[in-house]
Amino acid sequence: MADTAIPGLFDRTIRRITEAWRDMAAGVAPAADDSIPAQMRACLASRGGEVSARNRAAKLGEAYLAADAPGRLAFLRELASFDADPQEIAKAAARLAEAADPAATATATAALRRALEPPRLRLLTQFTTIPDGVKFLVELRAELLALRGTDPALAGLEADLRTLLAAWFDIGFLDLRRIDWNAPASLLEKLVGYEAVHEIQGWRDLKNRLDADRRCYAFFHPRMPNEPLIFVEVALVQGLAGSVQALLDETAPMLDAREADTAIFYSISNCQRGLAGISFGNFLIKRVVEELSAEFRNLRSFATLSPIPGFRRWLDAAIAKAAPTLLREGEAAVLRAAAPEAPDGATALAALLGRHDWFRDRATAALLAPILSRLCAHYLLNEGRGKRAADPVAHFHLSNGARIERICPGADISDKGVKESAAMMVNYLYDPARIESYHEDYAGEGKRNAAQAISRLLKP
Amino acid sequence: MADTAIPGLFDRTIRRITEAWRDMAAGVAPAADDSIPAQMRACLASRGGEVSARNRAAKLGEAYLAADAPGRLAFLRELASFDADPQEIAKAAARLAEAADPAATATATAALRRALEPPRLRLLTQFTTIPDGVKFLVELRAELLALRGTDPALAGLEADLRTLLAAWFDIGFLDLRRIDWNAPASLLEKLVGYEAVHEIQGWRDLKNRLDADRRCYAFFHPRMPNEPLIFVEVALVQGLAGSVQALLDETAPMLDAREADTAIFYSISNCQRGLAGISFGNFLIKRVVEELSAEFRNLRSFATLSPIPGFRRWLDAAIAKAAPTLLREGEAAVLRAAAPEAPDGATALAALLGRHDWFRDRATAALLAPILSRLCAHYLLNEGRGKRAADPVAHFHLSNGARIERICPGADISDKGVKESAAMMVNYLYDPARIESYHEDYAGEGKRNAAQAISRLLKP
Amino acid sequence: MADTAIPGLFDRTIRRITEAWRDMAAGVAPAADDSIPAQMRACLASRGGEVSARNRAAKLGEAYLAADAPGRLAFLRELASFDADPQEIAKAAARLAEAADPAATATATAALRRALEPPRLRLLTQFTTIPDGVKFLVELRAELLALRGTDPALAGLEADLRTLLAAWFDIGFLDLRRIDWNAPASLLEKLVGYEAVHEIQGWRDLKNRLDADRRCYAFFHPRMPNEPLIFVEVALVQGLAGSVQALLDETAPMLDAREADTAIFYSISNCQRGLAGISFGNFLIKRVVEELSAEFRNLRSFATLSPIPGFRRWLDAAIAKAAPTLLREGEAAVLRAAAPEAPDGATALAALLGRHDWFRDRATAALLAPILSRLCAHYLLNEGRGKRAADPVAHFHLSNGARIERICPGADISDKGVKESAAMMVNYLYDPARIESYHEDYAGEGKRNAAQAISRLLKP
Amino acid sequence: MADTAIPGLFDRTIRRITEAWRDMAAGVAPAADDSIPAQMRACLASRGGEVSARNRAAKLGEAYLAADAPGRLAFLRELASFDADPQEIAKAAARLAEAADPAATATATAALRRALEPPRLRLLTQFTTIPDGVKFLVELRAELLALRGTDPALAGLEADLRTLLAAWFDIGFLDLRRIDWNAPASLLEKLVGYEAVHEIQGWRDLKNRLDADRRCYAFFHPRMPNEPLIFVEVALVQGLAGSVQALLDETAPMLDAREADTAIFYSISNCQRGLAGISFGNFLIKRVVEELSAEFRNLRSFATLSPIPGFRRWLDAAIAKAAPTLLREGEAAVLRAAAPEAPDGATALAALLGRHDWFRDRATAALLAPILSRLCAHYLLNEGRGKRAADPVAHFHLSNGARIERICPGADISDKGVKESAAMMVNYLYDPARIESYHEDYAGEGKRNAAQAISRLLKP
Repeated sequence: MADTAIPGLFDRTIRRITEAWRDMAAGVAPAADDSIPAQMRACLASRGGEVSARNRAAKLGEAYLAADAPGRLAFLRELASFDADPQEIAKAAARLAEAADPAATATATAALRRALEPPRLRLLTQFTTIPDGVKFLVELRAELLALRGTDPALAGLEADLRTLLAAWFDIGFLDLRRIDWNAPASLLEKLVGYEAVHEIQGWRDLKNRLDADRRCYAFFHPRMPNEPLIFVEVALVQGLAGSVQALLDETAPMLDAREADTAIFYSISNCQRGLAGISFGNFLIKRVVEELSAEFRNLRSFATLSPIPGFRRWLDAAIAKAAPTLLREGEAAVLRAAAPEAPDGATALAALLGRHDWFRDRATAALLAPILSRLCAHYLLNEGRGKRAADPVAHFHLSNGARIERICPGADISDKGVKESAAMMVNYLYDPARIESYHEDYAGEGKRNAAQAISRLLKP
Repeated sequence: MADTAIPGLFDRTIRRITEAWRDMAAGVAPAADDSIPAQMRACLASRGGEVSARNRAAKLGEAYLAADAPGRLAFLRELASFDADPQEIAKAAARLAEAADPAATATATAALRRALEPPRLRLLTQFTTIPDGVKFLVELRAELLALRGTDPALAGLEADLRTLLAAWFDIGFLDLRRIDWNAPASLLEKLVGYEAVHEIQGWRDLKNRLDADRRCYAFFHPRMPNEPLIFVEVALVQGLAGSVQALLDETAPMLDAREADTAIFYSISNCQRGLAGISFGNFLIKRVVEELSAEFRNLRSFATLSPIPGFRRWLDAAIAKAAPTLLREGEAAVLRAAAPEAPDGATALAALLGRHDWFRDRATAALLAPILSRLCAHYLLNEGRGKRAADPVAHFHLSNGARIERICPGADISDKGVKESAAMMVNYLYDPARIESYHEDYAGEGKRNAAQAISRLLKP
Repeated sequence: MADTAIPGLFDRTIRRITEAWRDMAAGVAPAADDSIPAQMRACLASRGGEVSARNRAAKLGEAYLAADAPGRLAFLRELASFDADPQEIAKAAARLAEAADPAATATATAALRRALEPPRLRLLTQFTTIPDGVKFLVELRAELLALRGTDPALAGLEADLRTLLAAWFDIGFLDLRRIDWNAPASLLEKLVGYEAVHEIQGWRDLKNRLDADRRCYAFFHPRMPNEPLIFVEVALVQGLAGSVQALLDETAPMLDAREADTAIFYSISNCQRGLAGISFGNFLIKRVVEELSAEFRNLRSFATLSPIPGFRRWLDAAIAKAAPTLLREGEAAVLRAAAPEAPDGATALAALLGRHDWFRDRATAALLAPILSRLCAHYLLNEGRGKRAADPVAHFHLSNGARIERICPGADISDKGVKESAAMMVNYLYDPARIESYHEDYAGEGKRNAAQAISRLLKP
Repeated sequence: MADTAIPGLFDRTIRRITEAWRDMAAGVAPAADDSIPAQMRACLASRGGEVSARNRAAKLGEAYLAADAPGRLAFLRELASFDADPQEIAKAAARLAEAADPAATATATAALRRALEPPRLRLLTQFTTIPDGVKFLVELRAELLALRGTDPALAGLEADLRTLLAAWFDIGFLDLRRIDWNAPASLLEKLVGYEAVHEIQGWRDLKNRLDADRRCYAFFHPRMPNEPLIFVEVALVQGLAGSVQALLDETAPMLDAREADTAIFYSISNCQRGLAGISFGNFLIKRVVEELSAEFRNLRSFATLSPIPGFRRWLDAAIAKAAPTLLREGEAAVLRAAAPEAPDGATALAALLGRHDWFRDRATAALLAPILSRLCAHYLLNEGRGKRAADPVAHFHLSNGARIERICPGADISDKGVKESAAMMVNYLYDPARIESYHEDYAGEGKRNAAQAISRLLKP
């Protein structure tokens, strides 16, 4: 199980690490009690950075990596048990409650903070001093996220680790790097593995995505210099791109990038599961907009070409529960005409979407396009829990201050695109002058901004 | 006052920063209320990393740098007022006290931690995203250390900043770099400014200290790549060096470093006042021992040649209060014979030490050497508060796991050396095999390890 | 035709070059006579390095690249016509003949040298100052080699260019670089294209060849930093490797390189046709032996695993002319028994070698192995013109000072290996202690050194 | 003598080289005849690049460096004796004379070229393969230039070396690098040593010359990466600078370089005596004009502030021979009035120029300024041999295509400036649009271009 949970830990890099750690571990003087808990206590007793402390941390890390799944679980439970002492916390809270003057309050507050610091946090910190120790902690959190379940101790350990990683991976400490065909093959190979949106089909596809009319940027951390944290792929085009297959077509002619007026962000992939919940995407987009603006004076628009991963799920449910307001009268009529075997419009829609390769059939695609577009506009603008948009990608871009600019039927006819989004995609527009007010609209009152053409679709 | 407190902020680098920040600040949309507190609230409302958030942070930083001393104090008090809310803390503490099961306890503990996080901390964190923002925070703490006095609010702000900086400057994130004559002149110029132990007399002196039989290492942080945090100067010699003037003699012949058996750490200087209390020295020494061991196979000993900054102050006080056990009988007799005008041994000692250039007078120096050595041994091994050695340099090296190896009369005949240490210096020995046990001896029971020859001096 | 002659000139790099050159060419002031000869004269009149001179060279180069095949030929003939003036040479030679004293002789010799310098050489030199100008000259020579035929003018131009390139690509000016999986993808892609011995099957095969138990080194020139000149692939193994398919097996387990005792050079490829006749291979092998010796203390042998490209051609010819001494009596008997339909041993050998996949048939392979080995030993050690070995690969390694160490039947069962070498390969051994004497043996008296086991095969 | 001739060879770098070479030399197998000539023959017999060949070259080089002055002379004479064979040359020339058709002529021409190649050239080339071998050859030529005198053999050797170095140091192979205060101290130290025009007074002066409103550029060769070949110092100012002391004033306020409209080249220094006669200055200026134009959009003028090293020597000679046309009538009257003791104008001029600190005396300086300016204009525009300007600096800039823009009295009041140029300097203007035509004016008909104001000075 562990193997599938953290493949990264078992590739060659990690094999190299464990070897290095084994060498370091060999430098730890043997002790009477060499159990894992005893080793953890020894780690906590030592000061990070010392040769002996580093050797101890390496030994502990190596023991973890060498363990099987139950062994790892036991290890993590043991580690989690080095928690803050509830009695100490209670005492410190009581002392704070009694503090009479500002100075006493300040002292008692500081003491309470200290009492709340779990020793396991200090232990984890010691891994920064060993080679690839930060990468190890990131992988460890990935594993914890998979394992914690409802165990409060593991969840606490995971939360501690998250706090630590969030401080270290503060966006101020990240490096933005452009990645092109001159990048190390070992790095490009990782991109292929990490690309989560539109799978890279091979080196030729990859080279095409790094060509002169493309850009790829990633964030890196100084202590994980060969590991991208997140990356975005951009196409420089004329006008809003409306088909991802056209964008990825290796045989398409290359545009002179200096003539492009639009930058299309067509893929953003997070690379490190262990950094889940620590957000980089928003900043990456903003930084890349800055970079591109500086490099290409003719760029006027920055937009995405994004999937709508929740659309079909929502639509299928709406059809299933036969929501009466789902279709308008005219739409239902058109659909029934096209699928006369169906008892009603919704069923007809389902039937048409169930036909093999419906999106390649011109007539069907043309007939469905306006109906799906309207439904999609409704899904994006009206559906959700509270103020939050139902579609996760929509939520992400609306939070960032983008607006829904265009719905593109037939924009992604890959299996995944058809299955999840009925072959549609969305252009979210990032207008530097409005990003902030749009962000506040959405974050505040939950207002979802969209181009007029989109809003108009929803008018009765 | 501020000017003298943070000269770094007023050199050209900072002028360049403030210019850059002014440009960024110009991008902030004008607001109805543009007061400093309003700006701080706006900063807190925004998300770090956004262009607008960065511009706001830059604007705030620029306002601070442009302020005069009272303006800065007002700014810092304002900033300090964004503290955690005592009522929220109290509420969260109460909820924790009532938590009934592990899950509830975990949730309440997390909530209490959050309640304890002062908003000012989040505001400070936003500076990481602007150019030289980390350097700014380091300088800000230097200023706070000078200003806080007994003001609990300023002290709290300073403590927050320290917590932040301690996390970011974790030694695992530092780069160790060797500095030699091929280093950038701009960096070497900084070394000259930061050297705190044996002043660098000019470029020729500096070049001599970076020669083939010397080594200089420094720690750097990825976000302050041109600013050394701490550096150490090492001489590769044969046998324990016993005179710093001999080490620094530019006319001395150069040793083939491969033939050296001893590495002498003759100067360690912290460079950033704003990182006071965040310790690097210990780790620097250990890392450099590793580097040198790997490079020079013939090295057998690693030792310092260190000042004894508190010796004369202690000795003068002891003479002043005429401590009867200060001198032994034989010593007193010898001293009185050399200074017959003095009524007793202690007075004679003071008289001899008061003579002009006594350390250049062979007879006087020879007569004083054994007496001063014994007194020094006593001072280093016996004096102090509780378990802590009175001499700060001794405390530092004993904490690190070194032992007192040798006392060197006449080792530093610079003005400062004579005035503070009666021209004596000490070799502290770092024996890799014993560092840990020595460290524990001192940290635990307060035992100060020393070479037999030193301990023997104190036998009756 | 030119297209196939210099594919490099038509890839994207060159497209980028011609664009840059077109921009530069635009800076040349229009002239009354803008013909190619007039442009060449203008180039010769200007001083290299000046902006205007560089623009003129770029314009000329761009004209060449834009020309079709006949246009290029005309261009080259025109360029060739800027030859040294025979009358000036004759005059200078006459003056030298009449020189009476050493000083006059020296002056006249220098004058004769100058008279022999063709102006076209100076013109070519001006290309060094424009971007990628050196690469252009290398490609130009590749094209000249293909075009010169028996045209003395073109041959003279080619010879001039060779002289120039030989001076610039002096091995002292080349950089040896190790290439691994962290190298730029754009460089690795070139390796795939340039590999001339054992075709690289794809990125996975390539990665396998750059793994931890492999090494790849290449020479580069400072002015063509992204273009390998020659590269060698090395496998670190235990014992002499006897099968290239085993070496290239991607599923084979990886050896810990530190335990290897033998370095096998299994592929050497020249990358630049335009540098034909300027030899790098010998020096590359020697430099790599040095590098590997320094990195791996356990290495004891350095050997190749090389093809025998001329073996089958020679063998087939020998069979065809029914050379009576080709086979020994015992061999003929064995062969006839295995192919009873054949009238004699030679015919039987041909028949067996003609059978489909004979090398996979254990019995046939075992029967042929000793016979082919002996014939191969004879071919390598005895065949040739004068002192020069018939096999070009054998000639190369013997010239370099290697000896024939082992003949490996079945070592290369690729189509090419079977067709050219009857599936055999040879280990040539580079013994650092004997390289020089072996080189002299072969270069002097034509003696071909071989291991005893090889020589013994040839004894009656 | 050698010591003063090549100080570079005796600094630490070279000490390091000789050590490295001694180690390599130790790898040469001992021979029966180990004399220098025998070693040279062995070198010629071997192929460059081989380990053994490199060791032999290192041994030879080491022997040279270790020799005293007579030893070096003997070594160089020996080396020079490996000259081309006159009989072979004669034979080849005869065969060329007899060649009947183009092919035969081509072959015979190539043969004659080969016959003219002296073996010593091949021997020198082998030094490229040993560390710092190129630097060694550069230093060797510097020594040869000092030693050759009228010895035709040494002169021939020197000419060969020059040919070699000219090919390798082709400007197309040089790297232009900007040098600022972040450059390695070891490099800056070299600048201090090499500055030939306005001596650098120390690190503070140097830092001032590398400040934000200054630029310094140098050419480097890939095989001598730490050795500048030539460098130029530039000040970014408003209007033509007319005083070098003002430019070098460390206390002067710094200009915002982006506001500068003029770049003043106030110092150009060649660094390698061994590259004398291989010209870089012209190209350096042109390349730097390009760099500065790209960086600063407001720059409109590029000019020098140059010494007039030959002015006083010429003027003193003219005064001495009492040239009647030297002074105009009005000038003579003014001068006589100021120095009534003098019998005539010329003598009065001499007297005034002989007064202590005449250039600091306002009245004298004001009185002399117009007279000296006119004389200087005459010197620059009319004096010389044939078409070549008498003043070497004027000749250099006029050849490069600059024009004489302004004469600046009192522009250089350093001892050297007063002594050589009567405290005057000249602005030569590089107008990119006219560089070429001005260059041709001067190179062709010897026309010296100057601003109208200068030419007008010379009208009667």
